[in-house]
Amino acid sequence: MRYRDAGVDIARADALKGSIGRAVRKTWTASVRLLPNGFAGIMEWPGSGRTEGGPGRADAPLLLAATMDGVGTKLTLARAAGRTADAAADLVYHGANDLLVHGARPLAFLDYIAQGELEPEVVTQAIEGLSRACHEVGAVLLGGETAEMPDTYRSGTLDVAGCMIGTVTGSRLLDGRAARPGDRVLGLASSGLHTNGYSDARRVLDHLGLAMNAPLPGQRQSIVEALLEPHRWYGPALLPQLELGRVHALAHVTGGGLPGNLPRVLPDRVRAVIHAGRWERPAIFRWLIEAGSMPEEDARTTFNLGIGMAVICSPGQAVELTRACEQAGETVHDIGELIAGERGVDWIGDA
Amino acid sequence: MRYRDAGVDIARADALKGSIGRAVRKTWTASVRLLPNGFAGIMEWPGSGRTEGGPGRADAPLLLAATMDGVGTKLTLARAAGRTADAAADLVYHGANDLLVHGARPLAFLDYIAQGELEPEVVTQAIEGLSRACHEVGAVLLGGETAEMPDTYRSGTLDVAGCMIGTVTGSRLLDGRAARPGDRVLGLASSGLHTNGYSDARRVLDHLGLAMNAPLPGQRQSIVEALLEPHRWYGPALLPQLELGRVHALAHVTGGGLPGNLPRVLPDRVRAVIHAGRWERPAIFRWLIEAGSMPEEDARTTFNLGIGMAVICSPGQAVELTRACEQAGETVHDIGELIAGERGVDWIGDA
Repeated sequence: MRYRDAGVDIARADALKGSIGRAVRKTWTASVRLLPNGFAGIMEWPGSGRTEGGPGRADAPLLLAATMDGVGTKLTLARAAGRTADAAADLVYHGANDLLVHGARPLAFLDYIAQGELEPEVVTQAIEGLSRACHEVGAVLLGGETAEMPDTYRSGTLDVAGCMIGTVTGSRLLDGRAARPGDRVLGLASSGLHTNGYSDARRVLDHLGLAMNAPLPGQRQSIVEALLEPHRWYGPALLPQLELGRVHALAHVTGGGLPGNLPRVLPDRVRAVIHAGRWERPAIFRWLIEAGSMPEEDARTTFNLGIGMAVICSPGQAVELTRACEQAGETVHDIGELIAGERGVDWIGDA
Repeated sequence: MRYRDAGVDIARADALKGSIGRAVRKTWTASVRLLPNGFAGIMEWPGSGRTEGGPGRADAPLLLAATMDGVGTKLTLARAAGRTADAAADLVYHGANDLLVHGARPLAFLDYIAQGELEPEVVTQAIEGLSRACHEVGAVLLGGETAEMPDTYRSGTLDVAGCMIGTVTGSRLLDGRAARPGDRVLGLASSGLHTNGYSDARRVLDHLGLAMNAPLPGQRQSIVEALLEPHRWYGPALLPQLELGRVHALAHVTGGGLPGNLPRVLPDRVRAVIHAGRWERPAIFRWLIEAGSMPEEDARTTFNLGIGMAVICSPGQAVELTRACEQAGETVHDIGELIAGERGVDWIGDA
């Protein structure tokens, strides 16, 4: 069992195979939709679906989707740069994108904010960031808990976690079964690291002894500004496409990178081929890899490398989907295709 | 703004009046049911209620209820005693009782587990405790996040938080408007501190330099055993009574004690009178107050003092409600009544 803050979802997925998995599954009822490596949990809403036999619409029940996330190390960096609100907002975008992967749309968010000694202005900043992002993704900030635990949290630190709750119509649920050989893999550009790979990024910064405002070579931004770019929210581009049924699968490129996340939404005998030369890696990744002397293999499974969301669709839909996402403000790269083979990713060519 | 780990709900409620409140309310839509000091957030489920105009049952829409909680300092004590799973289970009972206050029943739970350095066996214990309790309260353990953050968490510590999601039929929602002067206040016995007051309890233990297994004077239990008694789950007793519409209001006695929590579910011009002599304080509270030289006033607003859930009902229902709860295994005390007056609590007599 391998744990790391950059790959918590994957760690949890691995753990689900062992004793943790048995404990979790013991609570599952027939109303849970099984998504072994899902980005969110999905279950039927009582009274609206098949198993309950209620007065609902059996053909298209509205399912409940929910996911729990933390901001992780990005928060530490953001606090040092006076940008707590932005990192808190990223937590909301992260959760909203996790729901999107299954075709779900955000409905409500609940936060957990903890410090060693509560600083009211820090808590206020965090909640203002959450509020702004909730408004943006269409979620109600429905509740939250604020905890002060000097024995647990280091002095001056802050942790923010949260649960995103959403809905998806049963007939529009993306459950990892629709992708097939021949499908295209489109990549929607990320704005930076999003919320993963920050432990590695901080290690590089600390190792080089760089000041917070050190410039990113060849760029106008400082390194820290580049690192703190907000997590992109792909709902405005993708929700209409999900409604139209144009998408076979989505993968939110979080900890584990494309090789770690794409296979989570592929059927058993389907493999992705990614052509690394088809998009340019943003400067921040090139700098991190070089300054940190990071092996290419590690970089691929640590960072999103410029692709924040992978979109899988039939070849016939690719042009239309690309055009629609571009019109919604996304940068779209045609990064690969699916083939028959063992579930996994072939990475062809260097960046 | 006063924050403390024993009174997080109240701190949040206070904060809601200020800038945090404005930020939170900015995200609220017409689908949110306003419960200013609620124990959970309540909103309409899309398509089933009034605002959406969908094909649902407008007379009794099924509402979404959700609450976020942390275990707090009890977890630190539980870890030291090798009872991590039990403290994790308490988090589930806590959240389930918070939903119950509004007439809601648990549906799903999502956890957040964080450590400085993840210890797989500790994470496993926590999840096993969550799983056991979820099974007991009828919630699916739908998801979770496991985070490792050495810069944020002290070495060897653990935090567990979680979001409980539930449902309540609109016609059965307890929204704090039904209680009226003349109503009885019944108290369902707690099993101990439940999940609040542990910072104070630890202070007493540390101050006296007591060993983990020091006996509780005059009792068979050790102090730590008494402190770690699980949080009672009142659903089996109360859910059938809620279905029958016999309950006007419930208050989960968490941080803030009866004086802090009862007013949260009372209408504007209604006041509670609590007769402290009508139930015996459990030995652990008597010991904590004496050994810690705690002023009576502080004890009332720190501990539940033996009452874990206050049940408000009409005088005509009190006998039947008491009998039913006792048959379900609860100990019920007739602890007071409601009168006309400024919202608050009169505390009459000493224990």
